[in-house]
Amino acid sequence: MQIGVIGLGRMGANIVRRLLRNGHDCVVYNRSPEKVQQLVAEGAIGTATLHEFVSQLAPPRAIWLMVPAGEPTEQIVTALSQLLAPEDIIIDGGNSYYIDDIRRSKELAKRSIHYLDVGTSGGVWGLERGYCMMIGGAMEIVKDLDPIFKTLAPGRGDITRTPGREKVTGTAEDGYLHCGTNGAGHFVKMVHNGIEYGLMAAYAEGLNILHHANIGKEGRSANAETAPLQHPEHYQYDFNLAEIAEVWRRGSVVASWLLDLTAIALLEQPTLETFSGQISDSGEGRWTIAAAIDEGTPVPVLSAALYQRFSSRGEDEFAAKLLSAMRFQFGGHVEQHQ
Amino acid sequence: MQIGVIGLGRMGANIVRRLLRNGHDCVVYNRSPEKVQQLVAEGAIGTATLHEFVSQLAPPRAIWLMVPAGEPTEQIVTALSQLLAPEDIIIDGGNSYYIDDIRRSKELAKRSIHYLDVGTSGGVWGLERGYCMMIGGAMEIVKDLDPIFKTLAPGRGDITRTPGREKVTGTAEDGYLHCGTNGAGHFVKMVHNGIEYGLMAAYAEGLNILHHANIGKEGRSANAETAPLQHPEHYQYDFNLAEIAEVWRRGSVVASWLLDLTAIALLEQPTLETFSGQISDSGEGRWTIAAAIDEGTPVPVLSAALYQRFSSRGEDEFAAKLLSAMRFQFGGHVEQHQ
Amino acid sequence: MQIGVIGLGRMGANIVRRLLRNGHDCVVYNRSPEKVQQLVAEGAIGTATLHEFVSQLAPPRAIWLMVPAGEPTEQIVTALSQLLAPEDIIIDGGNSYYIDDIRRSKELAKRSIHYLDVGTSGGVWGLERGYCMMIGGAMEIVKDLDPIFKTLAPGRGDITRTPGREKVTGTAEDGYLHCGTNGAGHFVKMVHNGIEYGLMAAYAEGLNILHHANIGKEGRSANAETAPLQHPEHYQYDFNLAEIAEVWRRGSVVASWLLDLTAIALLEQPTLETFSGQISDSGEGRWTIAAAIDEGTPVPVLSAALYQRFSSRGEDEFAAKLLSAMRFQFGGHVEQHQ
Amino acid sequence: MQIGVIGLGRMGANIVRRLLRNGHDCVVYNRSPEKVQQLVAEGAIGTATLHEFVSQLAPPRAIWLMVPAGEPTEQIVTALSQLLAPEDIIIDGGNSYYIDDIRRSKELAKRSIHYLDVGTSGGVWGLERGYCMMIGGAMEIVKDLDPIFKTLAPGRGDITRTPGREKVTGTAEDGYLHCGTNGAGHFVKMVHNGIEYGLMAAYAEGLNILHHANIGKEGRSANAETAPLQHPEHYQYDFNLAEIAEVWRRGSVVASWLLDLTAIALLEQPTLETFSGQISDSGEGRWTIAAAIDEGTPVPVLSAALYQRFSSRGEDEFAAKLLSAMRFQFGGHVEQHQ
Repeated sequence: MQIGVIGLGRMGANIVRRLLRNGHDCVVYNRSPEKVQQLVAEGAIGTATLHEFVSQLAPPRAIWLMVPAGEPTEQIVTALSQLLAPEDIIIDGGNSYYIDDIRRSKELAKRSIHYLDVGTSGGVWGLERGYCMMIGGAMEIVKDLDPIFKTLAPGRGDITRTPGREKVTGTAEDGYLHCGTNGAGHFVKMVHNGIEYGLMAAYAEGLNILHHANIGKEGRSANAETAPLQHPEHYQYDFNLAEIAEVWRRGSVVASWLLDLTAIALLEQPTLETFSGQISDSGEGRWTIAAAIDEGTPVPVLSAALYQRFSSRGEDEFAAKLLSAMRFQFGGHVEQHQ
Repeated sequence: MQIGVIGLGRMGANIVRRLLRNGHDCVVYNRSPEKVQQLVAEGAIGTATLHEFVSQLAPPRAIWLMVPAGEPTEQIVTALSQLLAPEDIIIDGGNSYYIDDIRRSKELAKRSIHYLDVGTSGGVWGLERGYCMMIGGAMEIVKDLDPIFKTLAPGRGDITRTPGREKVTGTAEDGYLHCGTNGAGHFVKMVHNGIEYGLMAAYAEGLNILHHANIGKEGRSANAETAPLQHPEHYQYDFNLAEIAEVWRRGSVVASWLLDLTAIALLEQPTLETFSGQISDSGEGRWTIAAAIDEGTPVPVLSAALYQRFSSRGEDEFAAKLLSAMRFQFGGHVEQHQ
Repeated sequence: MQIGVIGLGRMGANIVRRLLRNGHDCVVYNRSPEKVQQLVAEGAIGTATLHEFVSQLAPPRAIWLMVPAGEPTEQIVTALSQLLAPEDIIIDGGNSYYIDDIRRSKELAKRSIHYLDVGTSGGVWGLERGYCMMIGGAMEIVKDLDPIFKTLAPGRGDITRTPGREKVTGTAEDGYLHCGTNGAGHFVKMVHNGIEYGLMAAYAEGLNILHHANIGKEGRSANAETAPLQHPEHYQYDFNLAEIAEVWRRGSVVASWLLDLTAIALLEQPTLETFSGQISDSGEGRWTIAAAIDEGTPVPVLSAALYQRFSSRGEDEFAAKLLSAMRFQFGGHVEQHQ
Repeated sequence: MQIGVIGLGRMGANIVRRLLRNGHDCVVYNRSPEKVQQLVAEGAIGTATLHEFVSQLAPPRAIWLMVPAGEPTEQIVTALSQLLAPEDIIIDGGNSYYIDDIRRSKELAKRSIHYLDVGTSGGVWGLERGYCMMIGGAMEIVKDLDPIFKTLAPGRGDITRTPGREKVTGTAEDGYLHCGTNGAGHFVKMVHNGIEYGLMAAYAEGLNILHHANIGKEGRSANAETAPLQHPEHYQYDFNLAEIAEVWRRGSVVASWLLDLTAIALLEQPTLETFSGQISDSGEGRWTIAAAIDEGTPVPVLSAALYQRFSSRGEDEFAAKLLSAMRFQFGGHVEQHQ
């Protein structure tokens, strides 16, 4: 079927490619025109203005947005709402805050424009593997777009079937799911990313313990400020983390796709020296905690994972200085610089 | 090759079966004799006493222990050390504390008995999938037992190969790894379990947020003791967690074996009503934190995961009462019972 | 000076009393009239309607609100805004969300009504000790009300002076402070309460460790599901927590007012048996975390303290069941009920 | 009475001074002799060797050790055990691990030498304020040394009496307490310090939130890697932290001695620029967590406080790099350096 796609960054361009390769017609638009040319060369219909973009689509139009959350998405939705006709559909495939979806869908409904929020996971691997999609909005609109979702999703592939699934209908096994009314798609994607932070942190903390398992060789000196290592003989291991990540991929309880990627990263570069360790966070992790707090559900693991990212960027510096200042006040402790 | 196995519980019996099915000779011993009979019926050589067990094995003997960590393992190792001859090998495949391995291996070395510590992951699924094994001890002993490890391990199967692995030798891709000197195997397994706790908690917390996403429907009342929900309209979702767990298995960043199991569990029983939520912890999670603290490496996520288990068993009760008592003292706050 | 007070609950009534005892004129109003009668008996001017209340005050009026945050405060402010005249002052002494202060102060400014947000700490002890007040709003309005704040605040008392304070002017030493523009008062109070949660949790966790220091006497049994206690001989202490809390009040680093209250609570009732341990949270703790996340500042301690309260009310139940379900799936582990 | 003191560092020298000023006879010894000379000038009897030290004391001797925990204390105790006579008393006033106390007291008992473990809090302020002491060992030995403890402790001073204390006997109100058998003193002191870490972190995190409350003025830019600040207008406050710490000292719920010190530190140096924020930890914090884990009691707050210190020293660096490496693998995310 025909679909328009706005936003041809990392994710957007690959989504167009996966659609083109499977016989869909894609009309594309992007702020910077070079990315449009690239995809025209691959079979898309390029457009230079939002006006032209809309005019190239046959009503009722289906328009997939893949632009940064927040202001950029807001601007495009607002602009489109002036250009579209009743029964047209806007699909926000980016990482919008689900609360924005609730608001936008209500506003667009006044003009009879439909809105779907689609949390899309898959990253740079999605072109080949397919995208996992969590969808919020009206059931019948989701059904109308089923050919698009089916193409973008990974499908069943050779993943072992969950026992009992043979008795259940639905699209979850194909890698896309109608989760509920508007906002539901991005809510589920938000929590997905919150979980992702937690999983990543669990691996990182564990591997960091293995990384320091040779600390007994260092001869750490004891003084009034630093606890001595009581049993240096227990920490004499030089572990090969790339090998350990690899062996865990095979039959262990911690096997996962994130572990697969960790094994790749550690094999490529065992000391990770090209990374500084300043970790970004892009909204969903924060919103996950905010939602948990609104609900009153405890999320110590997911929060700790988020805070590690804040700390990695130095946001705990003033707090740390204050701790040193207190220690100096009550004990005359002077900082030990390592 | 011939191998003796002591301890025919859940894990031990299946290890014997996997060895028998692949042509190895197994001499087995267990405290309660019924389990021995069962495996004799499947082709093992059963024995009724530790003496008989040892006498049935041709020197140099290889003896795999699969008994509970701590006292039970200690007793068996002590008893065996009296019965075995130089060059015999004890393999501790259980969940021993790696510090016990260091001690035991030194004591056994005085009698020229070899010792391997083998962290074994795979649970009830290992019989079919194979076991992931992390091994500590002398390299040449590990090599002597390679046929055993190769049989027990999953092998490469159809898991995607890590790019670059074609240039690397070693057994990690087959699902077993010599991690280092004695203790290394159980150290790596310990951290593996620590990570496992963190991963499990990340999924559990995230799914709990989804479980409570309908809280806006409840009309939570506000009073001086309880914060009102500011935007009930943001929490009106009734999510189907089994479907969400299923869709995440397909192309999402959080896909993992634990998620596969979660999808099974939620499909079988969406409300999990047969579980009470009192979660055991079996040593490795605690030792992981103890090792991290010895090393001075921060592990907020792994710790939080462990503490949730303690709290689930009511171990925070006195602390909670104390908080209520303080609130009563400074604010006259009386507990609100829900 | 003359002041009107609306809301005669625990805090509001004592505020009126402290003002009356120090020569101020108080006009009071409360939804339920019995509380008004009580304070009339103590010297206040009682009123039966909001209309009467406003008419009893000489312009420019100063009106102190001490009603629950959220809807109740919103309703009173809205009602008052219709009755008041330019230059009148509304003081919100309750626990409002500072974001509401920002909005309200802007709306009232359109009618030239002034607004102060005053975070008020002191609880049931404030009548005798005085209230610590954190104030947001226009400087000149704060100055106009200085007699009120001075009366309500504790004053310097016999608290040791901070060295260097003799060179500084301002009211902080008297126990009240103009913190900044509107919202600043409740922002500082919010963080104050966030810290309070953290302090309380630190004491509760530490005392809980002491409470369980006799665990070695119990003979905890080991099985495949539960870690054995490796050194029962290290946990043979029956500590008297009331005595310990008392001794810490004298010269230790952890001396504090919350510890004073803890010592009272534990002396009154060493086992705290009248408390169930379901701990409320009343908004500020949550808002503190939300602000930290907006800012990107890590707050693992304050978050953990908040989540303990959620868990104490059973909000982690579904997550815990899920952990049990996962353990059952991968290891056949059956829950151990204690 | 007569007492010997070994170890004349920050704490030890002041303990001698407080004893001398109150009429006790002090025989002193220190590894570096200058510190001995200093105290001789103030009235102590100086000694140059351990032998001389012991010979200057009249049996039964009482010897107070104030040397670093671990190896230094171990060496002195071992050396003394060769020199002392039955009924002599060794008092370990340092920060020893309580498990060492249990062992040492048993060994010394074989020679009929008594041992007390005395957790001593008070820091550089103890000379004037007195020391809070938590004591483990045999009751009758504690009683024999009562004059020493009474002198070193703060006494009741003008601290408000806990209601109900008038009906209770004992020394807690004077600032010292016999907590139980050997190890009990250092166990309670250990937990005291664990709580101290938690309290300090609570203040530091809260004040850090206030410190960043002007983040809305910065115009933080949004991109695919960083979450935009949704409401910059809510973070426009430039708080004076020294004033806020001061006002909280007066009638607020968070008033404490640590807050007093914070107020001093922030008044001296509002930006804390002489501190780097690398925070030491000296054993008790770690042992507190280890004890909690042995007991199975959850301590998320105390753990988070400890881990902040580890992270402040860069011990999370490898974990952070790994997170960046994972993000690069799945999303092509390149680190944003701030």
